[in-house]
Order: sequence, then C-alpha cells, then structure tokens
Amino acid sequence: MTKIVIVGGVAGGASAAARARRMSETAQIIMLERGEFVSFANCGLPYHIGGDIASRDALLLQTPESFKKRFNVDVRIFNEVLSVDAVTKKLQVKNVLTGQTYEESYDKLLLSPGASPIKPPIPGINNPHVFTLRNIADMDAIIAALVAHKPQHATVVGGGFIGLEMVEALHQRGVRTTLLELAPQVMAPVDPEMANLLHRELLNKGVDLRLNTGLTAVESLDSLPAEPEAVDAYDQPTPHHALLSLSLSSAQPLATDMVIMAVGVKPDVALANGAGIALGERGGIKVDSGMCTSDPDIYTVGDAVETPDFVTGNPTLVPLAGPANRQGRIAADNMLGLDKQYHRTQGTAICKLFDLAIASTGLNEKTLKRLQLPYQKVYVHTASHAGYYPGAHPVTLKLLFDPDNGKILGAQAAGMDGIDKRIDVLAVAQRAGMTVRDLQDLELTYAPPFGSARDVVNQAGMVATNVLDGDEHVCHSEDVAQPTADQLVLDVRNPPELVNVGAFPAAVNIPVDQLRQRMNELPKDKEILVACQVGLRGHVAYRMLQQNGFNVRNLSGGYKTFQMTMAKF
Amino acid sequence: MTKIVIVGGVAGGASAAARARRMSETAQIIMLERGEFVSFANCGLPYHIGGDIASRDALLLQTPESFKKRFNVDVRIFNEVLSVDAVTKKLQVKNVLTGQTYEESYDKLLLSPGASPIKPPIPGINNPHVFTLRNIADMDAIIAALVAHKPQHATVVGGGFIGLEMVEALHQRGVRTTLLELAPQVMAPVDPEMANLLHRELLNKGVDLRLNTGLTAVESLDSLPAEPEAVDAYDQPTPHHALLSLSLSSAQPLATDMVIMAVGVKPDVALANGAGIALGERGGIKVDSGMCTSDPDIYTVGDAVETPDFVTGNPTLVPLAGPANRQGRIAADNMLGLDKQYHRTQGTAICKLFDLAIASTGLNEKTLKRLQLPYQKVYVHTASHAGYYPGAHPVTLKLLFDPDNGKILGAQAAGMDGIDKRIDVLAVAQRAGMTVRDLQDLELTYAPPFGSARDVVNQAGMVATNVLDGDEHVCHSEDVAQPTADQLVLDVRNPPELVNVGAFPAAVNIPVDQLRQRMNELPKDKEILVACQVGLRGHVAYRMLQQNGFNVRNLSGGYKTFQMTMAKF
Repeated sequence: MTKIVIVGGVAGGASAAARARRMSETAQIIMLERGEFVSFANCGLPYHIGGDIASRDALLLQTPESFKKRFNVDVRIFNEVLSVDAVTKKLQVKNVLTGQTYEESYDKLLLSPGASPIKPPIPGINNPHVFTLRNIADMDAIIAALVAHKPQHATVVGGGFIGLEMVEALHQRGVRTTLLELAPQVMAPVDPEMANLLHRELLNKGVDLRLNTGLTAVESLDSLPAEPEAVDAYDQPTPHHALLSLSLSSAQPLATDMVIMAVGVKPDVALANGAGIALGERGGIKVDSGMCTSDPDIYTVGDAVETPDFVTGNPTLVPLAGPANRQGRIAADNMLGLDKQYHRTQGTAICKLFDLAIASTGLNEKTLKRLQLPYQKVYVHTASHAGYYPGAHPVTLKLLFDPDNGKILGAQAAGMDGIDKRIDVLAVAQRAGMTVRDLQDLELTYAPPFGSARDVVNQAGMVATNVLDGDEHVCHSEDVAQPTADQLVLDVRNPPELVNVGAFPAAVNIPVDQLRQRMNELPKDKEILVACQVGLRGHVAYRMLQQNGFNVRNLSGGYKTFQMTMAKF
Repeated sequence: MTKIVIVGGVAGGASAAARARRMSETAQIIMLERGEFVSFANCGLPYHIGGDIASRDALLLQTPESFKKRFNVDVRIFNEVLSVDAVTKKLQVKNVLTGQTYEESYDKLLLSPGASPIKPPIPGINNPHVFTLRNIADMDAIIAALVAHKPQHATVVGGGFIGLEMVEALHQRGVRTTLLELAPQVMAPVDPEMANLLHRELLNKGVDLRLNTGLTAVESLDSLPAEPEAVDAYDQPTPHHALLSLSLSSAQPLATDMVIMAVGVKPDVALANGAGIALGERGGIKVDSGMCTSDPDIYTVGDAVETPDFVTGNPTLVPLAGPANRQGRIAADNMLGLDKQYHRTQGTAICKLFDLAIASTGLNEKTLKRLQLPYQKVYVHTASHAGYYPGAHPVTLKLLFDPDNGKILGAQAAGMDGIDKRIDVLAVAQRAGMTVRDLQDLELTYAPPFGSARDVVNQAGMVATNVLDGDEHVCHSEDVAQPTADQLVLDVRNPPELVNVGAFPAAVNIPVDQLRQRMNELPKDKEILVACQVGLRGHVAYRMLQQNGFNVRNLSGGYKTFQMTMAKF
C-alpha cells in the first residue's frame, strides 16, 4: 500500500489526489493544505471582486469533506508543512490553528506549493492598504477594504493577467484606477504592437495607464502632514480622504486609496530547497518529464516547476492552471508506478480586458529576437465571422514562423470576438508540428454566424505561405515609417481612406484598381514598399508590380498594423 | 500567355480567378457565369430571408466591374456555356439575354458548376409555390412570395443545412412551419442521438417536425374543389387561404402556403459529361489531387467534384464553401504550371438552429458502422467555460476514435456556446493525425470567460484515453436500456436527481459517495453497468468497483446521453 502525501490542495495537488484515488483504491492519500480551502477557483478571484461572479461559494469547488467522501482522501486544511526530510522520508507538519506540530511519513511525496505574489522590497510595501491576490483570503481582504473604505481611487501595480483583471474588476466597482507598469507595455506574453491594443482599450475605458513607471514607496497619508505635491490620477488636488501617497519612478507622487500589487509571482521553493531538491536555472523546481524531482520519491507540479519551452526546450516557468492540472494527473500516475510523460509547454493563455480579448501561444517576437532565432512574421486582420452577418469583429492575428521550414513558432491574437478559437486552433497546429502551409488546408467550421469560408487562420496560413514560397516579400511598419532614399512607400488605398483612417508619412498614393494603368509613374530604381489597409490589396499590388519588374515588398497587415505599431502610450 | 477560362463565378471559380491573376499578370482570364451575379455570399441567403442580414447588397461581394478593375478578369455574366469540346479546346457559349451564341477557346479550363437542388419527380413539384434555394434569384423569389402571399404556413422539405436554416428564417418571419424529413433524423452528418438535440430545439420553438415523412404530391388548392380532409399542421380546419395541399407518405394531406424543397443537391455534371470527362462513383466529377480531371487541360472544383474522404480515402461529395475556395486556389496555381495538392476532405461543418449550434468533422458512427470500420466512442458533457463564470452552457461532445491506435475518426458537438471552437480544435487534431492521447495534452486558451483549465476537448481526450488504455470499459445507452439477466444497472447519482432529472429503468441506486461503504450490496456474479449524470461520477464508481473485483462498465456520457439517445420524435 503506497502512502502518498500531497502538499498543496489547489489545481495541481487536487488533480493529483483525485487521479491517484481513481487509479488506486488501496493507496493511502493525505493532502496537506496550509490555507482554509482546497481546490478553489483561483482564476475566478478577480471576477468575484468585480461582481461578475456573484456568489463567493461558486469559487469553492470542493471541501475537505467532499474530497473525503468522493475520493477517500485525508484532507487536512490549516496544516502547514515546515520541512521535508528526504532521507527519512518524513515531514514536519504544523497545525496552524493549534500551533501543534507533528511528523508525517510518506512513500511518495507530491509538492504542489504554487507561486507567491512578488512583493518588491520598497518602503511601505506592508502598509495595510497594499494588497496582493493569490487566494480566497486575499480576495476577502480586498473586498473588505472596498466595503470599509469605499476607495475612490485604486492603483494596480503590474499589467499582467491579474493586474489587468483587477483593473477591470475595480472599474466595474466604480473605483477610478491607475495602472502602473514598469515595462513599456502591459501583458508581457505578447509583443508591444499587440499590447498597444490593450493600452488603447484601457484609455478608452478611462483607466489612468502609466507605462515605464515603477512604484518606489508607499506612505500612509493619514499619518503624514499635508502633502501639497501629491495629486491624484486626474491632476486634481488630493481629496482629503486619500489614504496613501505613492512615490513613483517618474513624475510627482500619486494619491490613492488602495494598492494591488500584481507584479508577478515567484515559485514557492522553500520546502523543496530545504529538502535538498535541485532547482533549475529559472529558480523553479527542476523535474524530469515524469514530473519527478532530483529525489526519486518526490514529485512536483504546478506554478513551482520549470518545464521545457515548446519551441526551444529551454526551462521555463509557466504559472497557468491548465498545465498544473495536467501535471497533477501525470504525477499521480507516476507515483503509482506508471510511466506518463508531460510534454513541452507552449504557454497558451488568454486575457479578457473589458471588451477585448488577447491571447497567445508559443514564443513571441521579443523572445525570438533575444534568443537570436530566425523567424518571419505576418499580420492579418480578418472578420471573426462572415462580414455580412451581424456581430462580426476584426481579429488581429500575428503569426510567427520559421522562415526555412514554415513551422509555427508562435501566434498572438486580439479582438472582440473569436480570439480564443483562433489561438486554440493555432496552439493545436503548433503542437502537432504543422507548418504555415498546413494552416491553409485546415477545415474549420463555417457558417456565417461562426466563421468564414476562408477563416482567419486559413488566411494567415495563405499569407505566410506566400512569404515562405517567395511569392511575396513583406516589409514591416518600421520600414514604412522611415523609408530610405532608395525606397518609396506606395499606398494603394482609395484617397478617402487616407483622410478618414489616416495616411502613411511621405507615401505616394495610387489606388490598387488604377495601378495597372499608372505603373509608369513609379521608379524602377527604388524599392517600392506597398501598403494598404490590412495587406490584401497590397498583396494584389505587390504581385502586379513584382511581375512587371519592380523591386517590391508589401507591408504585412497594412495600415492597421502600422497604426498599432506606431502608437505611443 | 496562358488563356484560362473559368465556368462559374461563385466560391471556387471566383477564388481561382483572383488567385490566377495574382500568380500571373500575363494570363488571359475569362470568367463565364450564366447567372446575374458572381462571387455572392450563397451561405448568407437564408439569413437575408430571415432578416438577420438586413441588406441584400451585403451578399453581393464582387461585381463584374470590381473583378475587372482589381483582377483584370473578363467577367461575362448571363453567359451560359452550352458545351465543351475538349479536343479542339473550344466552348459554345450563349448570351442568355440576347440569345446569341459564340465560340470561346481556352488553354486551360476550370469548371466550377456547383451543384443544383434536387427536385424529386413528384406530381406538382413545379408548382409556382414550390421553391428551392441556391442563388440570389431563388432568394428573391422566396422573399417576393413571402411579401406577396403573406403565407401563414410554410413547409420545408429536408432537414439538412439549408432546410434547417430556412425553418429558422421562416420562423423569424412569423410563418408557422412544418419540416418534413424522410429519414428518421435531420442533419445527416451527425448521428441520431445528436440530431435529437435538434429535434428537441425544433419542437421547443414550435416547429411542426415530421420525421420519416416524405412529400409525395403537391396540389394547388385554389384550383381544386374543397378538400375536407386537408388539415394544417396544427390540426385546425384548413384556412380558406391555404394555397397548397401536400400529400405525404404518412398521415393525411397537409395544407400549406409555400414549400421549400431542400432535400439535397446533385453535382452539375452536364458540361463535364458532354465533354467526355470521367465521372466518379458518387456521380461527381473525378479529379486528381491537383484538381485536374481526366482531361489534362480541364480542372474542376467545388460542389461538383469528388474528393477523397479524410479517413477512408473513398470518393465523397462535400458541397461546402471552404473546400471550394481552397480548391479554386489550388486549381489556379496548377493551371499556371505549379504543382499544388488538395488534401483529403473531413467535411467539417456547422449549423446554427435557433439557440443551438451543431457541428461535426470526420466520419460519424452511422458511416463507421456501414463501412464496418472498428471504432470506439465516448461522450462528454462539459461547460463551455468555467461553470462559475456567467454564461456557461453545456457542450455535448461525441468523439469517435480507432480502438487500436487512438486516432481520431470523427467528432460531433452541440450546444449553445463554444461549439465551433471545439470542433475546430478536433478538426485540426484529426488532420494532424493526433490520437485521443494527444488531446489530453492540448494547451488551449483558458480564462474563466473562455474555457476551463481542463477544456471539453482535454476532458474528452482523458475519457477516451482511459478507454484506450483499458482504465475504463464503457457501455452505452442501449446496454443500460435493456440489461440482460446477467447485468445490473447501478445509478450512482443522488436520489433527488433521479426524481428531478429522470431515472434509468430498473436501476439500483447507490450514490457514489456511499459506494465504498455499500459495495457489499452488489453482486459479483453480474456485470455492473454504472451510470451517473454525465459519466464523471460513474468513472469514479467504476474505478472503485473494478479494483474491488467487480465486473463493471461505465455509461459514457451518463443519463444526459441516455436521454438524448432514447428520445423519440
């Protein structure tokens, strides 16, 4: 009879416990959770704060009792593991309610400690009006503060998933919000031009977005003399009720009533470290493909582990619920003697921000550049379903691929409809080892309410295949923004579009439908950078010009991509 | 300079013309279309009739003029090709407006004739109140009849895509509608239990659904003496305005005001036949993987061609817009001397019916049975996104796979949300040659508004892998409906569910959470057929019992699947 002890009762741990029991009725299974709750919906926390999820109970998926009844798992909440002795295979456990400690032995140990919100060591970070959001208790504290202090203004620090979701949640509760982001963009998994769509959405919704801005200190205003310099996000004199003054890396102090720190998470490796388990180069726990650590009887899953990146194989930290769940299942099987493998991580993720969704899978361009990996990219802007059927919205899709073999390296999409679907399709295609050529042939569901005969993903595949086959050479926004003396930017849109939508700097305008007749207006000794609104007419013009002996490139994604790329926030 | 003539200016033909021009500025390209319109949105026709698409112009994607300007294609509408002489490479063309005929030569010919609605040879089929729907003129005629005659009742014959979309369109216009379907189910691409979800939806919306019912004759009521037997769909006396009396294969005549014939389409092979081009075994035009017919200078694409089925390689007729578009592109390249290949057809398709969507890809169970191919199937019923976030609806998914290697054979899904996405994901996985095992590992976008940490598709992969690995043996509704004397049906739901949702006939009820304590109540000499609501608790019970020496199978998809399967319409 195998005795399995699981430390941590959320995503990975809970999945492992349930799977282990299904695979073995005879195993002894103990789950130790230092908090009050097991298997709660941590991804739902911001949505309960914002009010979309009305019932707090809806977030509590299982109880110790339900786990016991269903899976015969001995769940001990409020039980914190203090240390692991990997030699004697014993744990020191503390009941945090009684303060008593006891020893627990294991045959197989699963660590599912997760990752904790990073609290940078800045003055005042422990002020009671500064919050992080990881669990039910954190959520309760934020809601209690919202109720007690009725803050008029909140500051979210960090524009990742939690940060953006909290901005929306606070906005929904009528709290004016400032978002501070140290980087030049929010949502690190996507590239800057895609993030600009989020920046625009934040501004449209009235959020005070401050990029390239760090928080350097937090001070309680009520314990301070009047601070005439401190102004609130809207440059009004500090209202007398403001609870905090924030010092920023730029500009004057910011008066606010509460701070949500959402600058990222770090793997909880204390227990593993204490047990002498090897850590990886990214600071997470190192595991083999069976989720086993350097100790053959200790497994780890979830936000605390390093897994290989899908494209590079390099160790990466991907704190997402999906991988944690699957890893838990695999670890359970392997602790019981099976041989299951976790495969590489693409990091597929999505975030809703007000009316927009943004999603990505695989590597982004920033990472490809940093690793000096060869890549090519194309952009398409295509309707989420047949444009003539109501409710279609543009999908902005960026596809990154290997310029030699066409393998998909990564994809990013943003828009109001159908974003999850397109990245799901591309994530499957990438995992299957498909090339951009294969994307042309995908047979996707089509009826006017759902898609197009040539779906966004087919379209992206066709555009990328043209590039791969040399049937089109593309240029990008940077080229068109600053053409050299040997280049000419040719805008093939219709003149009203230039007025209504916006014009490229220093471009010649010949509408595509006049180009065959007016080709003689163009120089053959310059490289012609063709541009239109989304890249389609530009492609038609490209093919005309190229076949007539011009040296041409087409702006991938057209003016829409140019606008995204050049926007300054 | 290649001279390309394209016969037919909709989906495949229009795609081919545009692609051919992009690939060659020098080719002469002529497009001959017997109708008034090229490149119209034929999939949108029912939605304009129903009013969802308000503007008729929205359906007209291109005009001859726009095609000429953009692509320098000589588009000749109202030009019908009467015959093809493949030896001299000449066409006889008739201008249907002037009646004049002329000869046109070609180097390469593309036939994109499409398929015509089948009009079975029954008496009265040519009555002016009987309509089909293939093109803009058909749509206009239906709308004109709706306006002129203000029909109170319409009859749609055939429950395929067009038939169901027309039922919804007529319903939206306030016309009471009877749907006649000769088969025992609507929507032939899916299996009967999935179609039952559509049957339920039709009845819920007040549609008079008559399965197993054929139309045998159409008679004008105004030219007939009073017919006391004829009653309308609601068994009320015939209102005096009824225009038609329909004879049916069953029951009494049906009084109605208009008939939409939507019993399927047959490939338009007349031209090809006359040219001596080989037809295939399904009655369509035979092509190689480059879309070339038996004549090396004649290509064909779209609804008229036979393509190999993805799973079996057998020739199949798949009249869908997506394949037509892709084939057009491939044929264009090949007519210009390239070597592009069309790959097999999965037949991925989707249909919206009121609040439901139903979609499928690959082979269905009916076909697998008919071809005597080995298969296994599982059902899952999982929320379209995290259940605790508002707006989640169940996705009912049926997954068919090879019992030996786990390869995906086909999938069907129905529900109110996220159906397109799940079938898209499965269509990509199938095309990539993935197994159900791979579905477990798919990294799909997850945030509570969009999915689940364990998505419907992951869940289906896990369930199917359990079956493939022998970790679960499944049974199906037929087994549970009629257990043998050596079997016992064990319902592991909670007693209130049996009352509120419905009970299995002759089942023993032990809730799963009591099963470990009450296992002694069960016989070891009988096969135990475990059942719950959707199959999850059944799996937990299965694992308990199996490990305790019982002979067990679990009902895949639980009571929900049982209910779908056993429903009678």
